[in-house]
Amino acid sequence: MHVVIVGGGVIGLSTAWRALERGLEVTVVDPAPGSEASHASAGMLPPANELILEQEDLLRLCLSSRERYPAFVAGLEAVSGRSVGFRRDGVLDVAFDQDGLAALEEVRKLEESLGIAIERLDPGECLAHEPALAPTVTGGLLAPDDGAIDPREMTPALLAAIDAHGGLLLRERAIEVIMEGDRAAGVRLAGGASVRGDKIVLAAGCWTHGIGGLPPGVVPEIRPVKGQILRLRSAEPYLRRTTRAVAGGSAVYLVPRSNGELVVGATYEERGYDTTVTAGGVCELLDKARKALPGVGALELAEAGVGLRPAAPDDLPVLGATAVPGLLLVTGHSRIGVQLTPVTADLMAGLLADDLVAGLAEPFAPTRFAG
Amino acid sequence: MHVVIVGGGVIGLSTAWRALERGLEVTVVDPAPGSEASHASAGMLPPANELILEQEDLLRLCLSSRERYPAFVAGLEAVSGRSVGFRRDGVLDVAFDQDGLAALEEVRKLEESLGIAIERLDPGECLAHEPALAPTVTGGLLAPDDGAIDPREMTPALLAAIDAHGGLLLRERAIEVIMEGDRAAGVRLAGGASVRGDKIVLAAGCWTHGIGGLPPGVVPEIRPVKGQILRLRSAEPYLRRTTRAVAGGSAVYLVPRSNGELVVGATYEERGYDTTVTAGGVCELLDKARKALPGVGALELAEAGVGLRPAAPDDLPVLGATAVPGLLLVTGHSRIGVQLTPVTADLMAGLLADDLVAGLAEPFAPTRFAG
Repeated sequence: MHVVIVGGGVIGLSTAWRALERGLEVTVVDPAPGSEASHASAGMLPPANELILEQEDLLRLCLSSRERYPAFVAGLEAVSGRSVGFRRDGVLDVAFDQDGLAALEEVRKLEESLGIAIERLDPGECLAHEPALAPTVTGGLLAPDDGAIDPREMTPALLAAIDAHGGLLLRERAIEVIMEGDRAAGVRLAGGASVRGDKIVLAAGCWTHGIGGLPPGVVPEIRPVKGQILRLRSAEPYLRRTTRAVAGGSAVYLVPRSNGELVVGATYEERGYDTTVTAGGVCELLDKARKALPGVGALELAEAGVGLRPAAPDDLPVLGATAVPGLLLVTGHSRIGVQLTPVTADLMAGLLADDLVAGLAEPFAPTRFAG
Repeated sequence: MHVVIVGGGVIGLSTAWRALERGLEVTVVDPAPGSEASHASAGMLPPANELILEQEDLLRLCLSSRERYPAFVAGLEAVSGRSVGFRRDGVLDVAFDQDGLAALEEVRKLEESLGIAIERLDPGECLAHEPALAPTVTGGLLAPDDGAIDPREMTPALLAAIDAHGGLLLRERAIEVIMEGDRAAGVRLAGGASVRGDKIVLAAGCWTHGIGGLPPGVVPEIRPVKGQILRLRSAEPYLRRTTRAVAGGSAVYLVPRSNGELVVGATYEERGYDTTVTAGGVCELLDKARKALPGVGALELAEAGVGLRPAAPDDLPVLGATAVPGLLLVTGHSRIGVQLTPVTADLMAGLLADDLVAGLAEPFAPTRFAG
């Protein structure tokens, strides 16, 4: 069976890799794999977050992905021969006021009830863990088993894995699905050529519903949610581990890499497909970062970028078969695409190879928007 | 007579052009003309500023340059066939507190006594001139005859003018002055070749004293003063005219271009030759800009750059003959190189062509550092 996957972000590529492992033939179509939201992403892998904790189905998906991550990375690094910068040296959450501290305590109780390792830290302990923190820190949480991954390493590793398994990558843009009767049978490329397939997977992030050729209503509108994100740089890592800081109701995350990069993210803006780095966005992130880390102003501002997170009408992932035979969707992962990559790829590969719909995936069926 | 000029910033290039106009043969040596401090510069041309008003010799130099600017630009645009973005539609100074207002009033009195057109504005008048200003503006000054130039247009125009007059540009790095007896007779290039000349002019900004081959003490140490500077962008110009804002003892300048670029400058940092764009530098400039222009956060942050201003031990320009026959210097213009370009080029051309030392130039002789 030949699967055509439109979209080469971490979701499309990992689905391709896992499908290839199951013995399927796979072609990925993307003019520039890993260049959009996956390129911008910080790759933070926290145990959960307060938004997810309130949504049971999504929480189950997240926890399953968290369990799968070590094996996913081990497999990917083995087949690709590349490191993906996976770290499980802890995620630190810190608060700078009493409200922030109270919110962290709610998170701690919930996470503890889920069996997640989580430790409460007093201000002195926070500073002992991260001496660069502002002494105004009021307390924190440490999730010792969690961490981060580097999506900019993950994309090339996934491309290498696809290549190693004999998968095909077409660096072209898909413009429409080719229908045969009521069935999806391929995609037409911008250059005029077409690719036939037994199953067609649209994994094109916030551009998914823009792919033509389909009856109305099959693909929900996936709106872009703009995230501005910065990369600072110092000779040595400025932080020891992935850190999130909350103050005055707003949060910033700070993800260090071993090469001295410190990712500071991210804004959350509804501005359509605008990808402008703005003075205000950069200011917002730097102001928040400096409140948590007063010395961070001395670091190089190496990059300011934008990613467009794909968000479905209900802000939940969209994954599985559509009403059109042969057509599947996998998109809508919003802020947590990298976090959900292992479970998403496994669920999609199961669907493609065995038509298996896992209970985990049911709440995220694309058909929920129909009617 | 053949003049070799080391350094292709606006000072070196304008000196070359004016010397060519006097009939001299000229070779400019620079691996990347106009790429350093001249590239970073905002090109603001205010009537004066409070630092200069206190230094009589420098003030005379500035006022002379201001008088020469229109003819300098007319000549340059005519010979090069290019626009240099010269504007004389006013410079607006605004204050956001009482101290700032008092400082502006001192400037106004001094400028008025010098015959400079200068108008006092109340807050309502400031807002009428620039509706984008914060309504917290406490008052301002308008210098209606002043403005700005675009150094990124000036450099190519100067290169075209040099070419039109038959001047030569060597895109190489000069490493040392070649001496013949006690006399400077040429420069050696990094590639191993050399260029002979009757007069050698070092115009290499903060790299001037790093050029070898000379007896100690001939070239004073010209230290780099780091300036971080931003370029914002909008579809239409966000400001009508060049604006400087003072609040809490610190200033920011905001120089609009007709293409929608808004230059926001600049930090003033003693950090050696470091050219890192830092989180703190960008933050400082954006915070100041937003205090003056609350809506500026919506603009694109198109560029963050660094220039190294050349500063002599006494922070004054260095121009004229040295103790070494045949060797001249022109550097040390610190923050006001673009402002001082026309007068500097004229004085240097006079020196080169006629050995004429104008009274204006005397206080800036390189020999003042000797002994």
